[in-house]
Amino acid sequence: MSFNTFGRVFTFTTWGESHGPALGATVDGCPPGVALDEGWIQQFLDRRRPGSSKFTTQRQEPDRVRILSGVFEGRTTGTPIQLMIENTDQRSKDYGEIAQAFRPGHADIAYHLKYGIRDYRGGGRSSARETAARVAAGGVAQAVLRDLVPGLKIAGYMVQMGDLHLDRANFDLAEIGNNPFFLPDAGAVPAWEDYLNAIRKAQDSVGAAVEVLIQGCPPGLGAPVYAKLDTDLAAAMMSINAVKGVEIGEGMAAAALTGTANADEIRMGNEGPRFLSNHAGGILGGISTGQDIVVRFAVKPTSSILTPRRTINRKGEEIELITKGRHDPCVGIRAVPIAEAMAACVVLDHLLLDRAQTGGRRGTIG
Amino acid sequence: MSFNTFGRVFTFTTWGESHGPALGATVDGCPPGVALDEGWIQQFLDRRRPGSSKFTTQRQEPDRVRILSGVFEGRTTGTPIQLMIENTDQRSKDYGEIAQAFRPGHADIAYHLKYGIRDYRGGGRSSARETAARVAAGGVAQAVLRDLVPGLKIAGYMVQMGDLHLDRANFDLAEIGNNPFFLPDAGAVPAWEDYLNAIRKAQDSVGAAVEVLIQGCPPGLGAPVYAKLDTDLAAAMMSINAVKGVEIGEGMAAAALTGTANADEIRMGNEGPRFLSNHAGGILGGISTGQDIVVRFAVKPTSSILTPRRTINRKGEEIELITKGRHDPCVGIRAVPIAEAMAACVVLDHLLLDRAQTGGRRGTIG
Amino acid sequence: MSFNTFGRVFTFTTWGESHGPALGATVDGCPPGVALDEGWIQQFLDRRRPGSSKFTTQRQEPDRVRILSGVFEGRTTGTPIQLMIENTDQRSKDYGEIAQAFRPGHADIAYHLKYGIRDYRGGGRSSARETAARVAAGGVAQAVLRDLVPGLKIAGYMVQMGDLHLDRANFDLAEIGNNPFFLPDAGAVPAWEDYLNAIRKAQDSVGAAVEVLIQGCPPGLGAPVYAKLDTDLAAAMMSINAVKGVEIGEGMAAAALTGTANADEIRMGNEGPRFLSNHAGGILGGISTGQDIVVRFAVKPTSSILTPRRTINRKGEEIELITKGRHDPCVGIRAVPIAEAMAACVVLDHLLLDRAQTGGRRGTIG
Amino acid sequence: MSFNTFGRVFTFTTWGESHGPALGATVDGCPPGVALDEGWIQQFLDRRRPGSSKFTTQRQEPDRVRILSGVFEGRTTGTPIQLMIENTDQRSKDYGEIAQAFRPGHADIAYHLKYGIRDYRGGGRSSARETAARVAAGGVAQAVLRDLVPGLKIAGYMVQMGDLHLDRANFDLAEIGNNPFFLPDAGAVPAWEDYLNAIRKAQDSVGAAVEVLIQGCPPGLGAPVYAKLDTDLAAAMMSINAVKGVEIGEGMAAAALTGTANADEIRMGNEGPRFLSNHAGGILGGISTGQDIVVRFAVKPTSSILTPRRTINRKGEEIELITKGRHDPCVGIRAVPIAEAMAACVVLDHLLLDRAQTGGRRGTIG
Repeated sequence: MSFNTFGRVFTFTTWGESHGPALGATVDGCPPGVALDEGWIQQFLDRRRPGSSKFTTQRQEPDRVRILSGVFEGRTTGTPIQLMIENTDQRSKDYGEIAQAFRPGHADIAYHLKYGIRDYRGGGRSSARETAARVAAGGVAQAVLRDLVPGLKIAGYMVQMGDLHLDRANFDLAEIGNNPFFLPDAGAVPAWEDYLNAIRKAQDSVGAAVEVLIQGCPPGLGAPVYAKLDTDLAAAMMSINAVKGVEIGEGMAAAALTGTANADEIRMGNEGPRFLSNHAGGILGGISTGQDIVVRFAVKPTSSILTPRRTINRKGEEIELITKGRHDPCVGIRAVPIAEAMAACVVLDHLLLDRAQTGGRRGTIG
Repeated sequence: MSFNTFGRVFTFTTWGESHGPALGATVDGCPPGVALDEGWIQQFLDRRRPGSSKFTTQRQEPDRVRILSGVFEGRTTGTPIQLMIENTDQRSKDYGEIAQAFRPGHADIAYHLKYGIRDYRGGGRSSARETAARVAAGGVAQAVLRDLVPGLKIAGYMVQMGDLHLDRANFDLAEIGNNPFFLPDAGAVPAWEDYLNAIRKAQDSVGAAVEVLIQGCPPGLGAPVYAKLDTDLAAAMMSINAVKGVEIGEGMAAAALTGTANADEIRMGNEGPRFLSNHAGGILGGISTGQDIVVRFAVKPTSSILTPRRTINRKGEEIELITKGRHDPCVGIRAVPIAEAMAACVVLDHLLLDRAQTGGRRGTIG
Repeated sequence: MSFNTFGRVFTFTTWGESHGPALGATVDGCPPGVALDEGWIQQFLDRRRPGSSKFTTQRQEPDRVRILSGVFEGRTTGTPIQLMIENTDQRSKDYGEIAQAFRPGHADIAYHLKYGIRDYRGGGRSSARETAARVAAGGVAQAVLRDLVPGLKIAGYMVQMGDLHLDRANFDLAEIGNNPFFLPDAGAVPAWEDYLNAIRKAQDSVGAAVEVLIQGCPPGLGAPVYAKLDTDLAAAMMSINAVKGVEIGEGMAAAALTGTANADEIRMGNEGPRFLSNHAGGILGGISTGQDIVVRFAVKPTSSILTPRRTINRKGEEIELITKGRHDPCVGIRAVPIAEAMAACVVLDHLLLDRAQTGGRRGTIG
Repeated sequence: MSFNTFGRVFTFTTWGESHGPALGATVDGCPPGVALDEGWIQQFLDRRRPGSSKFTTQRQEPDRVRILSGVFEGRTTGTPIQLMIENTDQRSKDYGEIAQAFRPGHADIAYHLKYGIRDYRGGGRSSARETAARVAAGGVAQAVLRDLVPGLKIAGYMVQMGDLHLDRANFDLAEIGNNPFFLPDAGAVPAWEDYLNAIRKAQDSVGAAVEVLIQGCPPGLGAPVYAKLDTDLAAAMMSINAVKGVEIGEGMAAAALTGTANADEIRMGNEGPRFLSNHAGGILGGISTGQDIVVRFAVKPTSSILTPRRTINRKGEEIELITKGRHDPCVGIRAVPIAEAMAACVVLDHLLLDRAQTGGRRGTIG
């Protein structure tokens, strides 16, 4: 049923609210015997952490992960892995207005209508803090993938922020770690900084688009027709807070293409089929082909802004609301490590699902 | 685990290959006591049927659905409903080259690599014929929704075909059923016909974008954080053959917006909250708000075209291939009733899921 | 969610009512490339078939299974396998009283209370005819197991019928196929025949106990703590119509044992651990040890008897009822091939589940 | 997939090892708005706690549960509830021999064969300590049931310990809380004490049988045919450590009954159907009838005894082993609150599952 569980074989269930005592992920189905410790997972959390640059919220959380189960003497045991992150920066404050009012564009009103009760502190369950737990779970997936598919690489990066678009001509994966935007173009960084500073000074926020590139993914992952690899990647990305669109390969642009332009022709390479283009984004019929997998998604601008907005409260009174506090001018930035984590979990999950059904055997060509 | 099952409470499992004796859907979790017969389901299948216009394949199938179980004296019994459609137009022919070669842009090579065996006749399991079974399952969902949410309306329509875009200024839902494109703009139909005729004469195909509008959906549907309503809608649409991108509300365009422009402000209406805009597409935090739900997706052009393309075969030989036979110049057209069916199933599923957890009670405002 | 689905990786969903047009099983998650045809599955159905002896109902059904999907050129393709059995012996008759009355001991009243509607013809969904679909699905599992675990053997047999108990001293597996009771003791057959004839003449029915022995099961199957092998075997057997108790190894008798008597001591054999006894029934901590797996269950006497019983009808009137028609004096007999089928499905499912998580690698000893 | 998850709508995933830093349960699918605090859950844990009598292990754990998420201002929010119990009594000691040797009758060898690695400290994941997490989850279920089905009562008690059987003539539910055996017969307590003292002095252990009685369960719970209420109860009980058999109503004794003796005749009572007996144990066709539900199971004697037993170690050496440390002479005693917790979870889960499908509507009689 899985309200809060993601995955089929390698699964994780996230729990916790923004301002509760802790949050975390219960990881189940992890293969045994894989080297894993807190330091390995911490490196992924550190990339996502708020406060790591002036463009992300100044909430100062160490976000220290603890492994409470499922790892023994430095290796996974095949039993559930509990990952817990304590919330240490729960500033005591008056939530008066937020407790009763519904921020426009926020999940406040939807949670209220559904559950009749919500933890309003910091957004509660709908806060982006939930994604810290996903990133921790993704760290476990990355550890297993390192073992099972040594050549696999998953890289996320921004391709758009408001009016600014990545210039693909300057694409350089090596630059991703060198700037606060996970931007694969060093030369564009100053312009992006200026742009986002202006947004922030205007007490506004801005949307973004993020791309995830999966290199070295084996062919044969994905289980038609309702557990397709692209279906699960789409669900994974759409489940991230504020995501409004997901694309594989050409994505929405495929609507404008002709069949002659779109189909990726095939030749024989040294190690099997070689595709002459990658409009498909590495997936055909829901199954990976061995090409690079390309996923892209859009993140809406955060609705927590300092500009007053019209809304209502629980009593049905019409009010104007300013969302005070610490907010990212572009939440899309922090979506990058989250998306990498989700991608890692999807790929691992399908790797395990595939070896369940086929035993990992592949059809041969030639 | 659900390789071929969709849904959480109201589920359907599709089975069957394009040229096998039959295909169908096993529907489980259907509420009891709902009026249902073959005629009701047939109307949905008839809208999807190939051969219904010159712009869809000329395969002449009556696509007659039979209900084999789960319905007694005209009402559902709460037990599994088996829907079977016999394949009557399986032309006996020589599949020689297709049996061994991999059509570029097709699932052929992916199925071969994964399973080592594939039913190559007419695309086998990867054929769009599988979607007939979904449409039948969607008919069951529509029957239940008619009972449980009388005011609900689900309408799909094309918004783009290649270079042509729907002019929203002329938007008229009433026109959808009056033209072969499910186009909500009567005036544009001749231009769309000319465009597609030209594509067909060029022995080519073209992509499309389809939108689904859900009106009258109750608030509170969607179960954060991994069973969000938008997540499930995205998965539903991405699982349709040839879909490469999915959008909710603003979709990918959200990446270019600012927070002030994007958040939908709220006032009080006569029957509860009234939103002043709908950038969110009716879903906040993964939960329906009561606004119209807007989902959009792109369908790539079919790769089965009469223009020769470079590819390889099972022996690893490099060849050129023409896909003979009956093919839609724009498969996006037939995606419209399929998308409506998937939307109906997702909404019903979440309605049942929600009443499981909350009993259908709603938080009050005012 | 799986109202009518059994299994985790290798799953089957049964559908159909006793007197509907057909019933069957939708098998999903089957490994590709396995030799399979209708004849193979038919052999299992023939063992279960009513009318195969004077001790089972005289309903004359050929119970011919058809494979509608998922098999191509004699091999499984990895896509769903639809198995359909048409109901040919649906005698047209007046169901008047049964339609309104609740047979005591039957599911009639429970289905009515739950669903408000039921297909009363022949018991509808609650009829033992549903088990024909399981046996067909079990045939698929047996085909896969023949490939993956050549040495595996699954044998079911009766160990009790009313007052008669199998004498373990005469236990001979080879005799199972030689008598209408699946009894592993040729000498006892005449006494069992006499006993059951007397029951039948008294217009009564009688309970039974069945044991399933799984030889050659690899160690390591079973996923603690809620997908234990014994948990799933218990669920499998308890789901069979009329089953009221399930035992593994010592079963209920374990309550009377001491720790010194119960624990199976271990020595080293030529091919690994060798257990000096098998009180555990081949499963420790929910995981197979490589020993014989022993499952036993009790089947209550059918409540469809010719002796009048007190009950009520839908109007709430108190009546007396005789269940006319064709009924087995001991339904436990036909439970034997059903239980074998369920055991095959559970073992295969756990084999696939295990290779998902561990890749099928085993810890070593020595 | 659910390796470590139990349930369909109301689910819990237990995590943690006997001697790790903590263990717990991640509860998902809980209805919102239910009053819940740590004190409520603690009362259930206190009944299960080791050290509560001289007949359970002397491990001194306070077993304090903490609610880390999903509860806000004293009420459930509909989001995941994380229940954590820290392990405070992890005595530092030398596990030398146990780390390498396989205790006969224990899960040690099975875990080793499956995973190749195991946390051997105190039994690791296979320890009965895991059941503390179930009891905590059961406390949440009990809170919800108190709201939704006020009249429901779940009572567990011992009915057998070794050679001693409960005398049903003296059955008195009110006595369960007054003795260390959860024995509904005050007069038998001294004899049971003497018996168990003798077992303990003999450095042995003994098996037991436990019964759970569910009174006031509404009719209509259970979803045929693979989510039957009895099937899920059987799985729930069989998943408890050391359980080897499960019975519903007559259980294994049904094998000896005739149809005339077994079927429960029905009359009309003031509030609906009234059954004249309860051989079925309150469940027909997998669905509750409104009668008392009766479940019984056998627990084998613990294999951790001070008497030397023959076994092997990882090197394949044949050795003799004594399991030192703190062990219950009859683990069946502590199975009582665990079984109550599992029963509460199953009933609540089916209550939610039923209202998903039927909306909780019931068929009428009269």
